Amino acid sequence: MTANSFKKYKIFISVLLTGFICLFLIAAGSLQAESPSGTTEQISNLPPMMPVPAKIEPVEGSFRLDEKFSVGGQAKPTSRAFKAVGRFMSRLAGHAGIFLEQDFLADQSLKTSTKFIYKFERVGQLEPDEDESYHLEITPEKVKLQSKTDLGLLRGLETLLQLLSVDSQGYYFPCLIIQDQPRFTWRGLLIDSCRHFMPLEVIKRNLLAMASVKLNVLHWHLSEDQGFRVESKTFPRLHQLGSDGMYYSQEQIKEIIQFASDLGIRVMPEFDIPGHSTSWLVGYPEYASAPGPYRIERKFGVFHPAFNPANPKVYDFFDKFFREMASLFPDPYLHIGGDEVEAVHWKENPQVQAFMKKHHLSDYQALQAYFNQEILKILTRYRKKMVGWDEIYQPGLPKDIVIHSWRGPQALVDGARKGYQGILSNGYYIDLCETAERHYLNDPIPPGSLLTPEEKKLILGGEATMWAELVSPETVDSRIWPRTAAIAERLWSPQEVRDVDDMYERLKVISVQLEETGVQHLKNQQMLLRRLISPAGSDLLKIGTLKAPFTIDKLEALQRLAAICEPVKGYARHNQGRTYTSLAPLTRFVDACFPESLEAREFRKIVKNYIEARQPETARKIINYLAGLYIIVPRIETVSEQIPSLKEIRPLADDLIHLSFIALYTLQLAEGGEKISNSWIETQKVMIQEIKKPKAECLLAITPAVELLLESLSSPGGK
Amino acid sequence: MTANSFKKYKIFISVLLTGFICLFLIAAGSLQAESPSGTTEQISNLPPMMPVPAKIEPVEGSFRLDEKFSVGGQAKPTSRAFKAVGRFMSRLAGHAGIFLEQDFLADQSLKTSTKFIYKFERVGQLEPDEDESYHLEITPEKVKLQSKTDLGLLRGLETLLQLLSVDSQGYYFPCLIIQDQPRFTWRGLLIDSCRHFMPLEVIKRNLLAMASVKLNVLHWHLSEDQGFRVESKTFPRLHQLGSDGMYYSQEQIKEIIQFASDLGIRVMPEFDIPGHSTSWLVGYPEYASAPGPYRIERKFGVFHPAFNPANPKVYDFFDKFFREMASLFPDPYLHIGGDEVEAVHWKENPQVQAFMKKHHLSDYQALQAYFNQEILKILTRYRKKMVGWDEIYQPGLPKDIVIHSWRGPQALVDGARKGYQGILSNGYYIDLCETAERHYLNDPIPPGSLLTPEEKKLILGGEATMWAELVSPETVDSRIWPRTAAIAERLWSPQEVRDVDDMYERLKVISVQLEETGVQHLKNQQMLLRRLISPAGSDLLKIGTLKAPFTIDKLEALQRLAAICEPVKGYARHNQGRTYTSLAPLTRFVDACFPESLEAREFRKIVKNYIEARQPETARKIINYLAGLYIIVPRIETVSEQIPSLKEIRPLADDLIHLSFIALYTLQLAEGGEKISNSWIETQKVMIQEIKKPKAECLLAITPAVELLLESLSSPGGK
Repeated sequence: MTANSFKKYKIFISVLLTGFICLFLIAAGSLQAESPSGTTEQISNLPPMMPVPAKIEPVEGSFRLDEKFSVGGQAKPTSRAFKAVGRFMSRLAGHAGIFLEQDFLADQSLKTSTKFIYKFERVGQLEPDEDESYHLEITPEKVKLQSKTDLGLLRGLETLLQLLSVDSQGYYFPCLIIQDQPRFTWRGLLIDSCRHFMPLEVIKRNLLAMASVKLNVLHWHLSEDQGFRVESKTFPRLHQLGSDGMYYSQEQIKEIIQFASDLGIRVMPEFDIPGHSTSWLVGYPEYASAPGPYRIERKFGVFHPAFNPANPKVYDFFDKFFREMASLFPDPYLHIGGDEVEAVHWKENPQVQAFMKKHHLSDYQALQAYFNQEILKILTRYRKKMVGWDEIYQPGLPKDIVIHSWRGPQALVDGARKGYQGILSNGYYIDLCETAERHYLNDPIPPGSLLTPEEKKLILGGEATMWAELVSPETVDSRIWPRTAAIAERLWSPQEVRDVDDMYERLKVISVQLEETGVQHLKNQQMLLRRLISPAGSDLLKIGTLKAPFTIDKLEALQRLAAICEPVKGYARHNQGRTYTSLAPLTRFVDACFPESLEAREFRKIVKNYIEARQPETARKIINYLAGLYIIVPRIETVSEQIPSLKEIRPLADDLIHLSFIALYTLQLAEGGEKISNSWIETQKVMIQEIKKPKAECLLAITPAVELLLESLSSPGGK
Repeated sequence: MTANSFKKYKIFISVLLTGFICLFLIAAGSLQAESPSGTTEQISNLPPMMPVPAKIEPVEGSFRLDEKFSVGGQAKPTSRAFKAVGRFMSRLAGHAGIFLEQDFLADQSLKTSTKFIYKFERVGQLEPDEDESYHLEITPEKVKLQSKTDLGLLRGLETLLQLLSVDSQGYYFPCLIIQDQPRFTWRGLLIDSCRHFMPLEVIKRNLLAMASVKLNVLHWHLSEDQGFRVESKTFPRLHQLGSDGMYYSQEQIKEIIQFASDLGIRVMPEFDIPGHSTSWLVGYPEYASAPGPYRIERKFGVFHPAFNPANPKVYDFFDKFFREMASLFPDPYLHIGGDEVEAVHWKENPQVQAFMKKHHLSDYQALQAYFNQEILKILTRYRKKMVGWDEIYQPGLPKDIVIHSWRGPQALVDGARKGYQGILSNGYYIDLCETAERHYLNDPIPPGSLLTPEEKKLILGGEATMWAELVSPETVDSRIWPRTAAIAERLWSPQEVRDVDDMYERLKVISVQLEETGVQHLKNQQMLLRRLISPAGSDLLKIGTLKAPFTIDKLEALQRLAAICEPVKGYARHNQGRTYTSLAPLTRFVDACFPESLEAREFRKIVKNYIEARQPETARKIINYLAGLYIIVPRIETVSEQIPSLKEIRPLADDLIHLSFIALYTLQLAEGGEKISNSWIETQKVMIQEIKKPKAECLLAITPAVELLLESLSSPGGK
C-alpha cells in the first residue's frame, strides 16, 4: 500500500466514522435514561467457582452474612488450620467490607452461637496421595465444613470464599452441599528463579494465588546456566560466584517452605544437572567437562557446559551437595532436571571418551544414564525420590521415580504402561503466551485414553511451567495468572468439566479475586505503560490531569491498544531482531501486554454471531467497538513520536486503521446488500497477512476475527 | 431539599448538559484534527527532580544514550557501591527500553571507552553527620559522578536517573554540573508495623522508594498495644503471645538492615515504653502495673496498661531485652517512645504509690522521668543513644539524646536552646491525610527562626510518620507516597526551595517514577475498586469486556469518583459511626481514595483563574470537566444499588449532582451577564455546607473550588 492510498483510506474511515459517531450521539440520551432500578440484576445461580467442585447440590435458601458471623473449630492457635481460618475471616471481612465482632485471631472455640463450624480429623501430610477432600454444607442457619485433613479444610475455605454472593439485601452464601476432592494429586506450578531472579515476595504472593485455586506443588527451579539461586554452606562458591548476589539464603528457603506448608503446598526443588549448569561451574570449574574458566551465562538457549560424568570427584561433590539440600528441603521428591544435555564438551574430553569406552557406554544418552544412576544412589541415600524430565527415563529405574514430561503426553502414557509415575507439563508451558483454552483442554489423561485404571493412577497430575527468560518480577504474574487458574481446574475438577466458554466467564471473575493474594497480573499493566510515557513529563500523565468528557488520554490509548495486543507466541520473541539476555529490559510495550487478549476473544465471538445471524444490532456492536478503537490512533501516533521506546508501536496503530477499514467497509456493504468484488477481497486478504506479521514483538489479536468477517463474504453463505 | 426539588434539579442539569454535549460534539472533529507533528513538544529545561539539588549549573549540550553506554569505577563486586551501580544500570535500561551491551553485574572496571565514571573516597558510615554530598558533571562525552563516600554516590545515582530526558532523537542526559548535599542529616520515615503488621516486602519496597528520594532513616515502630513485632530469643513470649504470629524473625530483621544498608539507609528501632505496651504484657504480666491477664489490644487509642516503674525486676528485664536488641540493631540510636503514658494503673497500684513517696516523686511525670533515667543507663551500657518523644525531655539528661517532637516545633526550639538535639515529626503526620503542601511548607527550622547557627545545628532533621491504625499492606503505600517525597525535599533541599506549584508539577512525575521501586500507591487504587465490584459478577468487570466509544463503565466511574474524593482528615475516621479495630476491613471506597486529590487541586486552580480573568475559554474548561464528572453519576447509582458495601457512596453521587448544578448555573449566569439573587446564593451556601459533611468517610474534594466560584459572584468583584 502506498502512502497515498493509505491517506485515502484514512480519510475514508474518517467520513465513515463521523457518520457512525453521529448516529451514536443521537442514542446518547440513553446515558441519562439508565436508571438503577432498571439494571439491578437478580444474581441467580451460583457465583463463579474455579476449580469447579466435584459435586454440588444446590438447596433452596441462603445464609446471610452480618457482623455476628463467627467461626469455631478445634484447631490449635499456631496450627495451619487456625491460621488459615484466621486468614479466611480477614479476607471475608475484606470482601464484604464487614466489621466482624469476633476476635478470630485469638479465639476460634466452638460456641452454641458459632455460625461457621469447621472440623477435621488430622493434620495432613505434604505428600502426594494425601487426602484433600472436604464436605461443605450451607444451610440458612449454619455453615459446616468437614474434612479428613486440615488440607481439606484449606481447600474448602477457598471454595467457601468463592461462594460469597451479593444481592440488594447484602452478602450471603447460597445454601448447598458440596462434596469435593481432586482428580489429580500433583497440581503444580514451576517457577524459574534462575533466568531472572524472583525475590521472595514474588514467590510468596504466587503461593497465595496457587492456594486460592487449590494448586499444591511449587516446583522451584533453582539452578540454571544463568544463575545458582540457593545458599550452599557446603559449597559456598555456588551462590557466591554463581548468582550475582541474587540468591535465597537458607533462612529464606525455610521461610518459603513454612509459608507454603501453611497453605498446604509442597515445595519441590529442582537442581538441573548435568547440563544447564554453567553457573555452578563458575565457582567449581574442576567438576566441568571442559577446563573453563566459566562465567554466568547471560544469553538464553542450550549451552555446552556440563558436569563431567567421568570424574569420580563429581559424585563426591553431589553426595555432599544433595546431603545438604535434602535436609534443607523436606519434600520427599527432588527434581534433577536432566534435560537438554549438550554433548559437545563430552565429545572433546579425552577422559570422558576413555570412560565411555571402559564402561561400554555406546552413546551420550548411555553416559547420561550412567550419571543418573549414580545420582539416584545419592538421592536414595538421603531418602529422596528422584524426579526428572523425559530424558532421564531409561529401563531399570526403580518404580518410585517420577517422569516429568516436557516433550509430550505420549511419554507419560509409555511410562505408565511400564509402571512409571509421571506428571505432565507439555501443553502447560505458560511462558509461550498461548491461550487459556489451549491449556485448559490439555488433559494429562486425554479423554478416550486406553490406559487401564491402574495405569491411569500412575499419572499423578501436571505442572504449569513459568520459564523466566522473558519475565521480570514485574511481569511474571501476568504470565502466570489468570491462565494457570484454568490449568488448576483441569487438574482438580472432574474430566467432564470442559466447557471453554463457561471457563472464560468464570476466569474473568477469578482473575480479579486473585489480586487479593497480592499477585500483580492486572495492576502492573497500567504501571508499565505509565512508566513508558513518564519521561516525556507531567503533561503526559493521567494523575491529577483534568479530563473533559469523551476524550481519551494517552495512557488510556495505550491501555486500549495493549488490551487487543498479545506478545508473539512460542519462542518467537527471540527472533524479532533483538538478542535477549538476563540483563535486557523487560519494560517495553510487549511486556505490558497480556499473553491472551480476552477482549479480542469476545470480539471474535461477536463477529461469529454476526456471521451466523446477520443481525443489524450485532453489526452496530462491531461498528461501535471499532470506532472506540479507532479514536485511540491519533494518541498512539503522538506518543510514538514523543517516546523513542514507543516508536515501535506505530505500525500497530497503522494496522489498526487498516483492520478497521476492512471491517467497517465489509460491514457497510454487507448491510447495504451490496456485492463485493472478489478481487477486492483478495487484496484485503493479502493485507491481513501483512497485518498478521509481528510488530513491536506483538500481534494484533483482533486480526483473526476481521479475517473471519472478510472470509464470510466470499464463502458460499456470504452475499 | 425535598425529593421533588432534587428531581427537578436533575432534570435541569440533564437539559443543561445536553446543550453542552451538543456543543462539544460539534467540536468533536478536533479529534481527527490532532496531528502528531502538531503536538510534539520540544522538552526544554531540565526534567523534574525531587529533592531539588543544592546547586545546578546547566551547560549547553547533551549526553546521548545508546547501547554502548557503559559504567566504570573502583568498587568491589559485593560492595554497596557496586550493587547500587548495577541496580542503576538495570533501571536505566528499563526506563529507556535499551539493550545495554556491558555486563555491568560482572564488570565495572574503568576502561578508556567507559562513558559513565564514578569515584568515591571511602565507604560511608550509617550515622548522622556522615558525608552524603556528591558532584555530578555531564558533558556530551562523559558522565562523571564523584563523592567523598559511597553514600554520596548512591544519592548522585538517584539524581542522574531523574535526569534521564527524551526528545524525538532518543534518550539523553542534559549537560550540567551539580554540586549537592543535604540540608538536614536526619531524613526519616517512621513505619508502624504494629497497628497493622507490615510484611517484609512492604518494608523493602518502601526502603527502595525512600532511597529514590534520598531519605536515610527508617524509624521502625516495632512494639505497641496492638502487637509486639520482633522475635526475642531472651523473652520469647513477647513475640509468641504478643503478635498473633505476625512478627519479624531476627533473620528477617537482619535481612532488612542489610537491605537498608545497601541503600544507605539507617534502621532505628522503636520500642515504646512504659506505656503503649499491652502486647508485651500478654506474655509477661509480672512486669505490669496491674495484675492482668492481658490480651492483645484490638482497638486504637491510649490505654491503661504500663510497665511498673516501681518493680526492680522490670529494669532487669529491660537490661536483658535491650542487650539483645542493641546487638540485633547496629544503629547508634534506639528510640524508646515514651509518649502518652496513662497513669491509671500507676494510681491504682500501692507499690507504685509507695515507691513515689519513698523517692520523692511528686507526680507521674517525675515517675516516668525516673524510669527513663534507668532505661538511659541501660542503653548507655549497650552503647546506644536514646531517642524519645517529647515527653522524655527532662532537665539533666545527657546532651547526646535526641528529642523527637510529635507535639510541635516549639519543643525542638526549646530543646535546642538548652543544647539538645531534636528531630521534627509534628507536621509530618502523613496518616492524617493532609496535603503535600501542608507538609512541604512545614520546616524543622522555620524561616525567620531566631536560633543561633550552633542551635540550628542541633535540629537534625525530621521524619514522616506512617501510623498504621487505618492502613493495611494494600493501602499503606498510597498514604506514604507521593506526599513523603515532598517531605524528603524539605529535608534535603535548600530552605529557599519552596515553590508549591512547582513542587506539585514535579511530584506528579516523581510519583510515577516511584512505582519502579515496587510501591503500590497508584496501582492499588484500581485493584481495590475492582475487588469492590467483583462480587456482582463478570458483567461488572472491565477485563475482556467490549466497550463502545464514549461510554464509561462502572470501574471507570468509580475511579473518576475516587479521583475527586479524599478520606476525612485527621482522626475523623474514628468518629464516623464505625469502631475501627486491627481486625476491621480496610477495603472500602474510602481506602481506595488518595489522601490528596491532585485533580481537585488542579480544578481549584482553574476556577481561580476563571474568577480572576473571566475568560470564556476557562469557563468552557470548567463546564467540560463537570460534564465529564456528571456522566459517572448514573453508573455510581447503579453500583451503589448492586453492591451493599458501595451503598454508602450514593450520597457522594448526589452531592456531585448538586455541586455540578451550582457551578454550571453560576457559570451560565455569569457568562450571560445575568445578576443572581443574594438569596439564591445564600441557599447554595447552605447546601455547600451540607456537601462538606463527610459521606462514606470521604470528602468531595472539589467542593471548596465550587464554593469559591459561588462566593466570587457575591463578592464586590462579582457581577
